[in-house]
Amino acid sequence: MDGKITMKIHSLAAIVATILVIAAAPLWAAAPASTSAPTMQQVLDASKPSDWRPLNPADTLYMDLPEGRVVIELASAYAPLHAQNIRTLAHEHYWDGLAILRVQDGFVTQWGDPAAEAKHPVHPPRSLGKAKSTIAAEFEREVSPALPFTRLPDGDVYAPEVGFSNGFPVARDPQTGKTWLVHCYGMVGAGRDNTPDSGPGTELYAVIGQAPRQLDRNIALIGRVVQGMQYLSDLPRGTGPMGFYKDPAKQTKILRVRLASDLPPSERMHLEVLRTDTPTFAALVESRRNRSDAWYLYKVGKIDVCNVPLPVRKTP
Amino acid sequence: MDGKITMKIHSLAAIVATILVIAAAPLWAAAPASTSAPTMQQVLDASKPSDWRPLNPADTLYMDLPEGRVVIELASAYAPLHAQNIRTLAHEHYWDGLAILRVQDGFVTQWGDPAAEAKHPVHPPRSLGKAKSTIAAEFEREVSPALPFTRLPDGDVYAPEVGFSNGFPVARDPQTGKTWLVHCYGMVGAGRDNTPDSGPGTELYAVIGQAPRQLDRNIALIGRVVQGMQYLSDLPRGTGPMGFYKDPAKQTKILRVRLASDLPPSERMHLEVLRTDTPTFAALVESRRNRSDAWYLYKVGKIDVCNVPLPVRKTP
Repeated sequence: MDGKITMKIHSLAAIVATILVIAAAPLWAAAPASTSAPTMQQVLDASKPSDWRPLNPADTLYMDLPEGRVVIELASAYAPLHAQNIRTLAHEHYWDGLAILRVQDGFVTQWGDPAAEAKHPVHPPRSLGKAKSTIAAEFEREVSPALPFTRLPDGDVYAPEVGFSNGFPVARDPQTGKTWLVHCYGMVGAGRDNTPDSGPGTELYAVIGQAPRQLDRNIALIGRVVQGMQYLSDLPRGTGPMGFYKDPAKQTKILRVRLASDLPPSERMHLEVLRTDTPTFAALVESRRNRSDAWYLYKVGKIDVCNVPLPVRKTP
Repeated sequence: MDGKITMKIHSLAAIVATILVIAAAPLWAAAPASTSAPTMQQVLDASKPSDWRPLNPADTLYMDLPEGRVVIELASAYAPLHAQNIRTLAHEHYWDGLAILRVQDGFVTQWGDPAAEAKHPVHPPRSLGKAKSTIAAEFEREVSPALPFTRLPDGDVYAPEVGFSNGFPVARDPQTGKTWLVHCYGMVGAGRDNTPDSGPGTELYAVIGQAPRQLDRNIALIGRVVQGMQYLSDLPRGTGPMGFYKDPAKQTKILRVRLASDLPPSERMHLEVLRTDTPTFAALVESRRNRSDAWYLYKVGKIDVCNVPLPVRKTP
């Protein structure tokens, strides 16, 4: 669609057409081929130390499964009440000895207290201690300067705007002034029942399939798996309804969950994630919109918010 | 955006604005809540026998792994040369005793001949028999009446139009007159090297993570897993580059792959898939755009092509 066409018309028609060109262009225009762009690896190799951000120990969970460790970064800025309750639960060792309850193929892996889900539990549900059993919904927030936003250029099926905020995939609606975390692969949320305040963070889930974006704004996302995703995605699928394990013996035990800041410094992992508000991140996005690897014959020139890699590395 | 606005203007401006309203509206407009819509289960319960299509035995592969059977429907209309070569390979029992070579988390599971990928293979690569070792690229096709198209209403980040064609997710570009299969979860493609004709269907992959749409038009998709996807998605991730298994002992053996039409009728499965060109399918799509389940507090009113379920059932 040639923008010049709209210049010949005027008044309301011109305004409407111009707005719509802006709105529609990313979805329609063929992308110009970008042949000299660096690859993602080249972008990362050229990154500066300041392009990286260490994980905050007070926002970092280690979940140890028999196969290995899952590292989760809490999204405190988007779900502060949930993050605080999860810190309390981890501090009390709430999840130690609990289990993976549900693995629904192409959807989610979910963990928590088997007794809270069982119809006829052998033991009573585990005490929440000082943690709260209900928390007000944290499904979206007001747009604010405290929530930075790096917008992606290619639009989105589900939301007016998408991009990244402190390393988390997010969406925004300028009309309502709201912003929210989005359900990409590896995002972690707090399972709930039918009432909005029924997910206190005791039972958590991670996305293991195609981004289930219909969950956005329906449930509180509380963070993201930054390392060890494979230990949640390669588990045997549950054969009961919604992927729950019919046979409790198939549930994978959780060895322990710890907040990094509850551990002595010598036991903490030193990980850092690529910042999403830098020219280096913009270059990384571009390297994925137009792959310059020799294998790619057709460069699509687009990227979906859930296809942008979010690199993590050991602190050099 | 109110369609009536465009009715007051005329000629080119009206045409441009109308086209753009159609193009842009699904990405921007808040969707009206649809509270009385049936659930997907209600849609399926009310379906007629004619809403379903039996799998064609000549287009159906059974891949038997130690954990269970994967059923793949070949997309003969989109990749006829590849489908024919794959039929030949199955007829010759090419894959029997070969292996899952690669499981890259959030991306693909890939299978084929370990000797074809190994640097120092113990055995020479398996003979392809009467099958071809190279096939011309089948990355896209001309739009034609032989390729039906049920368009989805909500747009797409990567393509001008998306929808379904005989049960497969597809995209179209009206400007180029081309259509192609898209890389949704469960889609199966023919791995290739850097030249476009280097993927004869001997080494196949299935998508196990977020739709890697950057692969669209870069490689031949040849079909879709219609049953048993969990046996490809729950495998241990490879720890080598690109998810290849460093240790060949970790590779999962393929017991056998058969084309259903090569088996006696008594050994064939009787499966049928929901047709994608019926009012019932349109109702199913609507049931997923606006979930009427009590759990959903916010109805997004949108759906991505890779989030539309494609039901399969035993023939009643």
